[in-house]
Amino acid sequence: MKDNPQACVILIGNEVLSGRTQDQNLNYLAKALLTVGIRIHECRIIADDESAIVTVINDCRAKYDYVFTTGGIGPTHDDITAAAIAKAFGVNLYRNQEAVDIMKKYKGGVLHEASLKMADIPEGSALIQNPVTAAPGFIKENVYVMAGIPAVMQGMIETLLPSLKKGKPVYSESIWCNLPESKIAFGLDKIQKEYADLEIGSYPHWTAQTDYRLNLVVRGADKASIKQAMQTIEALIADLESQA
Amino acid sequence: MKDNPQACVILIGNEVLSGRTQDQNLNYLAKALLTVGIRIHECRIIADDESAIVTVINDCRAKYDYVFTTGGIGPTHDDITAAAIAKAFGVNLYRNQEAVDIMKKYKGGVLHEASLKMADIPEGSALIQNPVTAAPGFIKENVYVMAGIPAVMQGMIETLLPSLKKGKPVYSESIWCNLPESKIAFGLDKIQKEYADLEIGSYPHWTAQTDYRLNLVVRGADKASIKQAMQTIEALIADLESQA
Repeated sequence: MKDNPQACVILIGNEVLSGRTQDQNLNYLAKALLTVGIRIHECRIIADDESAIVTVINDCRAKYDYVFTTGGIGPTHDDITAAAIAKAFGVNLYRNQEAVDIMKKYKGGVLHEASLKMADIPEGSALIQNPVTAAPGFIKENVYVMAGIPAVMQGMIETLLPSLKKGKPVYSESIWCNLPESKIAFGLDKIQKEYADLEIGSYPHWTAQTDYRLNLVVRGADKASIKQAMQTIEALIADLESQA
Repeated sequence: MKDNPQACVILIGNEVLSGRTQDQNLNYLAKALLTVGIRIHECRIIADDESAIVTVINDCRAKYDYVFTTGGIGPTHDDITAAAIAKAFGVNLYRNQEAVDIMKKYKGGVLHEASLKMADIPEGSALIQNPVTAAPGFIKENVYVMAGIPAVMQGMIETLLPSLKKGKPVYSESIWCNLPESKIAFGLDKIQKEYADLEIGSYPHWTAQTDYRLNLVVRGADKASIKQAMQTIEALIADLESQA
């Protein structure tokens, strides 16, 4: 899994940081990218702030194979992502005629002047098709710039997936039990050490009703190895539950 | 609002980056902290990876008044936050007797050995009380280390709020309309320039059913100024809708 393409997601928007909006894009992107073996190693959530966008884009594009951004590419004053990304790359914005034509067609021939802003993209970018509301995103080198509206972002990433460099598929299995984490911790640690190529995660849930609910997840590239580890975990759970 | 304490949130956990878990903690923290005038300027989501945690903690604690982390403080092998934060500060972990006593009491006197790991905190830390499941978080200088389970994290931050340095309250008003963003963009930009002390956000929603729904949010420290700006926006909406 370590050789798989590494991605970073950058969510751009004051509304996520102020609590106005519950982000849904990271979760959707994570699942979609894993289907082609691309793992998200980091996510940055930043404001609609030019200097923050420039710094974070330049930091992340140097570090990861893919950078996916969402948000800030609409027509209003707070949509500054395209201009900030042009600045990060040291290029100008230009009006992309294909983007103008796509939006004009979608609007039945009449385009508000403010909409033209959405056709202004950094020099050297290619368009990302938007099957939902037409206004396209863009790709500048390894930076993929998408809309923040979940339905639109989802349309864009689904359109992009076939064109991305694929990694080995990542598989996972999971099991629920009612043990407290502290009871299974030592046994689980031993299993993790035996299966160093796998990632074993322990995710406790707590509700006033059930007290403990524990979800154990085994993740990796080798299905047979995952199955074996999961059987060992099942035996451990059975053993601990019989002691209760 | 610029003088208000600035916070950064760090969510630690593979499960958020893999898409297994939809994060709820950032949204809760954002709303809770705004009630005492603390704004989140950035959020970092990173894996359970020692070097990532060390780097991001040291980066953020130098940059912000407050750093709040969630995740990775349980008893299992993948809970490495406390050790990584000790490393970031260049101090050792030590077993905090008060934490041991709190957990022992909660468990009716019997503590699994693995639970003791949750009492190991960096030298020079103070405990964060956990009103839900007892196992405490900790504060090391300006870094507040909390659990990842939403109910537990919520209990911890509510306990902490009265002790945090307060900023000026941040107020907001919002209004919905059915205009496309492109139609209101110019007028809105003009209003934003008139009210430079306020933050005006434009958040389009798109569904196949309603086509456009637009939410306009005015945010700031001065209630009278917010009210005035909102009235100007309402007049703009009425004017544009009458042209439709």
